[in-house]
Amino acid sequence: MNYSLDIERTAAKKQKPAADRLGFGKYYTDHMFIMDYDEEQGWHRPRIIPYQPISLDPAAKVFHYGQTVFEGLKAYRTADQRLLLFRPQKNFRRLNQSSARLSIPSIDEELALHALKQLILIDQDWIPSKKGTSLYIRPFIIATEPSLGASSSTHYQFMIILSPVGSYYAEGIHPVKIHVETEYVRAVKGGTGMAKTAGNYAGSLRAQDDAAVNGFAQVLWLDGVHRKYIEEVGSMNVFFKINGKVLTPALNGSILDGVVRNSILELLQHWNIPVEERMISIDELHEAYDNGMLEEAFGTGTAAVISPIGELHSLGRRLVIHGGTTGELSAKLYDTLTGIQLGELQDELGWMVQVS
Amino acid sequence: MNYSLDIERTAAKKQKPAADRLGFGKYYTDHMFIMDYDEEQGWHRPRIIPYQPISLDPAAKVFHYGQTVFEGLKAYRTADQRLLLFRPQKNFRRLNQSSARLSIPSIDEELALHALKQLILIDQDWIPSKKGTSLYIRPFIIATEPSLGASSSTHYQFMIILSPVGSYYAEGIHPVKIHVETEYVRAVKGGTGMAKTAGNYAGSLRAQDDAAVNGFAQVLWLDGVHRKYIEEVGSMNVFFKINGKVLTPALNGSILDGVVRNSILELLQHWNIPVEERMISIDELHEAYDNGMLEEAFGTGTAAVISPIGELHSLGRRLVIHGGTTGELSAKLYDTLTGIQLGELQDELGWMVQVS
Ligand SMILES: Cc1ncc(COP(=O)(O)O)c(C=O)c1O
Ligand SMILES: Cc1ncc(COP(=O)(O)O)c(C=O)c1O
Repeated sequence: MNYSLDIERTAAKKQKPAADRLGFGKYYTDHMFIMDYDEEQGWHRPRIIPYQPISLDPAAKVFHYGQTVFEGLKAYRTADQRLLLFRPQKNFRRLNQSSARLSIPSIDEELALHALKQLILIDQDWIPSKKGTSLYIRPFIIATEPSLGASSSTHYQFMIILSPVGSYYAEGIHPVKIHVETEYVRAVKGGTGMAKTAGNYAGSLRAQDDAAVNGFAQVLWLDGVHRKYIEEVGSMNVFFKINGKVLTPALNGSILDGVVRNSILELLQHWNIPVEERMISIDELHEAYDNGMLEEAFGTGTAAVISPIGELHSLGRRLVIHGGTTGELSAKLYDTLTGIQLGELQDELGWMVQVS
Repeated sequence: MNYSLDIERTAAKKQKPAADRLGFGKYYTDHMFIMDYDEEQGWHRPRIIPYQPISLDPAAKVFHYGQTVFEGLKAYRTADQRLLLFRPQKNFRRLNQSSARLSIPSIDEELALHALKQLILIDQDWIPSKKGTSLYIRPFIIATEPSLGASSSTHYQFMIILSPVGSYYAEGIHPVKIHVETEYVRAVKGGTGMAKTAGNYAGSLRAQDDAAVNGFAQVLWLDGVHRKYIEEVGSMNVFFKINGKVLTPALNGSILDGVVRNSILELLQHWNIPVEERMISIDELHEAYDNGMLEEAFGTGTAAVISPIGELHSLGRRLVIHGGTTGELSAKLYDTLTGIQLGELQDELGWMVQVS
């Protein structure tokens, strides 16, 4: 397909940050992609422009009614200087699924991928190559109509911004302490939990802040109806290894269908390791722990890939998992996924998309 | 108290719209109030400036994680040209309560009210005087830090914008058709339903759009746990008159503590009319209807004040309430509240605040 994309290059390239001081989502590249929507023209005027502020009317609906969706994925620079994306089609597909829930018009997924590749090529100097670093990609759509009526917007903007990010783990993968949240709820069936939309994260901040004060890396969310079924860990999906079997909460309408989660399910099947997607109660977890069968626990997501859970503080108890160290399966999954992403391992499942 | 406020007046006043074409939230006045927050200075630099676009980094947290809260209230011009606000302290109090849930730093409520009065005085020509019109006031806070980490922002802006609005009812109060929503959920206990924050409205748009296609004015929300207790109607609180008694859902953590709802409770007490705040199931409503005891139903909120419900389409049934016409209590509450707001009736409960 032939998409024509206007490209305006920056006159003044920014200084690039040092590879060991990147952090997460603090620096942005020289350019961004943007495309407009109105009811007459649909999505139109796809273009790459210098990274710049957005100017919006104070009444723009995104500020008041949160009509917005986003995605998160990464590009990697391999040792032989190829630029690889990890399953990007899944992210643009999920963006459209989120948009359906938020009453936002869908985008052309192929156009979006084409635009992303163009943008990455233009800003390819920004992709770091140090072990563990990558280029984080943030596509997002915001409602821009300046109107306070509580109805869907007539105008939107779709943007993609790029941020070079550091290794999530300074010295390799290591386990974190998690607080099981019993006061706040992230999402509920019938709500927006399955969509990647701002409101879910807004509602999580307070619990996350409280947990951080008490020394926890993240919270583990329980469902909003029974307040006992496990949903997610912070903004990651979650897996448990219990008595040799791998378990993860089923997609129930209130959790995100994570790309890493899906990839792990495919890998485990490929390896013939038994895995179940189903409801998992916090009581079942306690019981498995008491019987010495809770072997591993880990969160999964684009940012950290695999985040082992070393301690779970749950209903007044402190569960230490795998002696507070990284389990074998967690480590194997981490090594395999990052190995494929960095082009060091054979991409047997056909996940990587080369930018060229 | 003495608050010093920088004021920059516009060089080019806008043309004012005709009083009969105002609609809701479509036009904005010549000026706006704005104040900044950072961690070192706290809230600082309160100022009134010409109404103008906001310029934000594309990575500003409000776009991605929806960290934002807002309020809605009205100013009225009386026949003798006084400018009155309806219980504005309640709105700034609620703004701070919403902010607490969203991990946003609280504002000085007195400063906010002072700033609002100043802003209204500067733009007082914009307050329409035609029966049923008013000046809608939208205070809101947005997270502006340009960072993609899923944590609370370090920077915020608090703004107040003003919009002259038309009568909600072209020809006086009239009943609407409501759809009882069974697929989507607005909010759940432990979530953000009690806060006035963007994500709640974002999650409502899809249901609202679907209902509008089918000829309904609004949806009636059921609770997210049992999916049978009545919560709100669109973005209004809801009341029922059943067998002479007035009922409204209790504040349960997932509905908004409406200023109009609260005022109606005070009025009913003042009038010695029995009223109960408690859980009301949709089954109880059906039963009351079948027994001929469902006498009136109405939504309450700043925009419409009282919105009588003429028809409720619920679980495959069509309940026609008060013969599809406005009930006596609904009419009396509407006349009393709007009479007090317009300075036509004695303000016995001390609600109105004069701007001068
Ligand atoms: C709420 C939530 N759950 C899970 C995930 C994991 O999804 P993915 O594997 O696609 O990054 C994310 C995003 O990273 C998320 O925001
Ligand atoms: C969700 C919701 N419920 C109820 C109300 C009514 O609140 P108030 O009476 O303060 O306008 C509003 C705001 O108008 C609202 O947004």
